Amino acid sequence: MAKIGVCDTTFARYDMAADAIDELKKNAGGVKIVRYTVPGLKDLPVAAKKLIEEEECDLVMAFGMPGADEKDQVCANQASTGLINAQLATNTHVIEVFVHEDEADSDAKLAELMEKRAREHALNVVDLLVNPRNLTRLAGSGQRQGGPDAKPLKK
Amino acid sequence: MAKIGVCDTTFARYDMAADAIDELKKNAGGVKIVRYTVPGLKDLPVAAKKLIEEEECDLVMAFGMPGADEKDQVCANQASTGLINAQLATNTHVIEVFVHEDEADSDAKLAELMEKRAREHALNVVDLLVNPRNLTRLAGSGQRQGGPDAKPLKK
Amino acid sequence: MAKIGVCDTTFARYDMAADAIDELKKNAGGVKIVRYTVPGLKDLPVAAKKLIEEEECDLVMAFGMPGADEKDQVCANQASTGLINAQLATNTHVIEVFVHEDEADSDAKLAELMEKRAREHALNVVDLLVNPRNLTRLAGSGQRQGGPDAKPLKK
Amino acid sequence: MAKIGVCDTTFARYDMAADAIDELKKNAGGVKIVRYTVPGLKDLPVAAKKLIEEEECDLVMAFGMPGADEKDQVCANQASTGLINAQLATNTHVIEVFVHEDEADSDAKLAELMEKRAREHALNVVDLLVNPRNLTRLAGSGQRQGGPDAKPLKK
Amino acid sequence: MAKIGVCDTTFARYDMAADAIDELKKNAGGVKIVRYTVPGLKDLPVAAKKLIEEEECDLVMAFGMPGADEKDQVCANQASTGLINAQLATNTHVIEVFVHEDEADSDAKLAELMEKRAREHALNVVDLLVNPRNLTRLAGSGQRQGGPDAKPLKK
Repeated sequence: MAKIGVCDTTFARYDMAADAIDELKKNAGGVKIVRYTVPGLKDLPVAAKKLIEEEECDLVMAFGMPGADEKDQVCANQASTGLINAQLATNTHVIEVFVHEDEADSDAKLAELMEKRAREHALNVVDLLVNPRNLTRLAGSGQRQGGPDAKPLKK
Repeated sequence: MAKIGVCDTTFARYDMAADAIDELKKNAGGVKIVRYTVPGLKDLPVAAKKLIEEEECDLVMAFGMPGADEKDQVCANQASTGLINAQLATNTHVIEVFVHEDEADSDAKLAELMEKRAREHALNVVDLLVNPRNLTRLAGSGQRQGGPDAKPLKK
Repeated sequence: MAKIGVCDTTFARYDMAADAIDELKKNAGGVKIVRYTVPGLKDLPVAAKKLIEEEECDLVMAFGMPGADEKDQVCANQASTGLINAQLATNTHVIEVFVHEDEADSDAKLAELMEKRAREHALNVVDLLVNPRNLTRLAGSGQRQGGPDAKPLKK
Repeated sequence: MAKIGVCDTTFARYDMAADAIDELKKNAGGVKIVRYTVPGLKDLPVAAKKLIEEEECDLVMAFGMPGADEKDQVCANQASTGLINAQLATNTHVIEVFVHEDEADSDAKLAELMEKRAREHALNVVDLLVNPRNLTRLAGSGQRQGGPDAKPLKK
Repeated sequence: MAKIGVCDTTFARYDMAADAIDELKKNAGGVKIVRYTVPGLKDLPVAAKKLIEEEECDLVMAFGMPGADEKDQVCANQASTGLINAQLATNTHVIEVFVHEDEADSDAKLAELMEKRAREHALNVVDLLVNPRNLTRLAGSGQRQGGPDAKPLKK
């Protein structure tokens, strides 16, 4: 029975974690969830590492919503770099699920994108933990979480 | 009884740490504070790590005020990255409370923003240490420290 | 008998790993391959480290296809930095084979470039593992994987 | 009796270390200095770490003078990041004293700035080692090393 | 008898390592050289670390030639950052000798610059290992490897 950590922020304007948890429960029978909410993006790396090392999670999902300003982009870069370092320190996946505030042009579309990305990444998590061959079958196929997939290239 | 480290700089033009300490004392009975002031932003990461490892703080708040020039932005990025690395090395939160000099258009508004952000982040610290469920209740709700909160997205 | 890890993504639009594996098998008799597919670029560093430390690979190839947007460049930078850190943590080479979506002006040319780069880097891998002197013979000679080589400088 | 490491470069166009050493000797009776000169900025991080771990310095000052080109800014960023990492690895302060070549518009003014910044940071070092409360008294007061201080904000 | 690691790339268009090795042999009697060639800049950090930890080199020189495109600058930044991290992990100098393809306006001048920089850095290496006081005598004197030195500032 896998234990999945879910960390997210009070800064974000949509609760992606709730959607992901719903999707995880539907698709991974008996999965155990540990949720940890922090103020902002920069607090996510240590939250993820604590979930792995103190709560013994097998994998962590990290949800965030960077703002549209230049300063927000810098902050997102720091958080992503920290999340990668947390993974390297623990040999454990932390699946980053970030939606940038400028990825859609209305609040409704942004919320829809956030739900879809959260749910599709939850399915990636299930594959990573339970059926990694599913991912290899899709290698190089242009998968996009939350939007239409890209077209595979043909020679 | 929690022990909270507070590190800040002589470079900043406002004493945010004093406000945060006041707020912590009001909201976390018996909290113990260890204060450590360094010259500038780049000195904060090791100060935070020393507070955690040598003073045995349970959590650290790091206050800084990056200037408005491009060089100051680069410096803030180095400091923030270092603060995240200090957290990853210790599995301990360091709550970064930075106010950029260009976030308000008058000295009075800037000082007001700095006090508010310091106090609101002090409350986040209390929640992280004592009542983490408060933060999860606010997950994805658009909290902003020091300014008006953002609106949660509706589908 | 060398064991080579191959990690790649479902995000990419072409399966470079298949070409590289084909080339490795043709050129390194008895080589053992362990393949590991993850969702995106940011998941590659920990995948590479796990292949080295958990699967005991002697070397890893990491395949990715960053998109053409500014955000994709930032993401590629994070992934590359993480791949270098994974190498430093393990004293093991991870050969990064990235093709940026804007490196060719048609899908057909892009696919061709991706195949060529994957195959030529597979040959580099064989040299690194079996015959490192081949690489020293080519030191400073302007080798380019997937495109025409550059001209060596003459005084 | 404190032992202070001083590392600097042959690249810089002014010998800040000499000024700082003079100031340290005047203000910290019996201080012991270990000096280590390297070619350029990128060599400073390991020099600082060696001074701490091999020479057992209690604190290090790192002097550098980044050029004015974009490439020099990138190099300064790498060096600063490395200096922060050296501090985190050793729980020891490394006070970075960099003056960018474009901070003054004449050679004479630049030299004057470099001397002042070096001397004022030497005083910070004495406070950090001997009298840290002096720094806390100046918290949030807009100190600038080498130039006129900034004004503290009033509400 | 010092052991010096030399790592370089097949990507570069000039063999700087050969010049540096020649200069080292002329100026450091009995020096032992271990050479290691990798495909590109991003492969240098782990190569340097392996030379230090597996080949027991006392110091490493890392030669590279970043291209002139924006993507090449990003790649050079990753490599330089990795080289600094390799040094911090080993307390050993890795002297980076990079020449950017846009540093000269003809192939002949570029090759000349590359040879000069390689040779002058080889002399720095000898000083670092054998006579570090030579470097301190040149502290703050505006040394430039491969080009005319800068003028020391006068007050």
